[in-house]
Amino acid sequence: MNLIDTIRVVEDYPKAGISFKDITTLLQDPQAFRQAIDSLVELAAQYEFDYVLAAEARGFVLGTPIAYLLNKGFVPVRKPGKLPAEVFHYEYELEYGIDALEIHRDAIKPGDKVLIVDDLLATGGTSSAMIKMAEALGAEVAACLYLIELNFLPGRDVLAGYEVHSVVKYED
Amino acid sequence: MNLIDTIRVVEDYPKAGISFKDITTLLQDPQAFRQAIDSLVELAAQYEFDYVLAAEARGFVLGTPIAYLLNKGFVPVRKPGKLPAEVFHYEYELEYGIDALEIHRDAIKPGDKVLIVDDLLATGGTSSAMIKMAEALGAEVAACLYLIELNFLPGRDVLAGYEVHSVVKYED
Repeated sequence: MNLIDTIRVVEDYPKAGISFKDITTLLQDPQAFRQAIDSLVELAAQYEFDYVLAAEARGFVLGTPIAYLLNKGFVPVRKPGKLPAEVFHYEYELEYGIDALEIHRDAIKPGDKVLIVDDLLATGGTSSAMIKMAEALGAEVAACLYLIELNFLPGRDVLAGYEVHSVVKYED
Repeated sequence: MNLIDTIRVVEDYPKAGISFKDITTLLQDPQAFRQAIDSLVELAAQYEFDYVLAAEARGFVLGTPIAYLLNKGFVPVRKPGKLPAEVFHYEYELEYGIDALEIHRDAIKPGDKVLIVDDLLATGGTSSAMIKMAEALGAEVAACLYLIELNFLPGRDVLAGYEVHSVVKYED
């Protein structure tokens, strides 16, 4: 099955000029979902790591099956105010404005290896933030895996020096 | 392993008087996470269903491994404004105020069977909303599964008439 055929493209969402890649149509197709997870697990299995790190909410959808299948722990990265214990709070710039993410400080110890998983590599902003958070807590980033990569955006350049893999690529 | 030992209780979060059950400590322990998912899959395997239905963000963490392992599709229920195609929007009352959830209208067809999965059964508010949304689109609810159930709250009564199972129970 060509997974790209199961992804719905919604034009002008969330704003004019953007072709949004909607993975809900892939997720609800059991065969496509299985193939997507199996492809990501095959990529992940090349690396040694302790935890899958993924950001809410779409990152969770792909991150936990990978963690389960490879017998790893799962560490959620969340929007501010959602994690109940002591957090490491990280702010980063977007095209317009500032966004922030949080991770539990005790979720990662120095020397831990993490695999970063997300649905989409576009500008690389969220992934860069997650890398900086993981490294600030002393972790090493084994690799960054994505279901979808937008090749016409600079995500891969922004993540230069890290291992980056994706399953489905869009050229425009 | 007794899973309850891997869940962190954070007192007075998100507000005074509440003992928050923090599953991030369970998720990051590979053995505990595996046992939790395996227990939920064993419960789920008793039922016939087409889709796992789960609400963001913690529901996603448990819902997708279950869907993968049982070869089912996954349908996300999201906060307003997060789903790109035509949605069914549902508002429901909380103790103070109103909350809302959305589901893609084309995610469910009449006659589909859904399994509702969430991390926590407390007052049953979110699950009731998900049941009403699924039924409004013509689906049948096979069962509702939770990692944690707070027995001192009326969740199970609120869901009377539905199949309800949980893995870890708190009595107070």
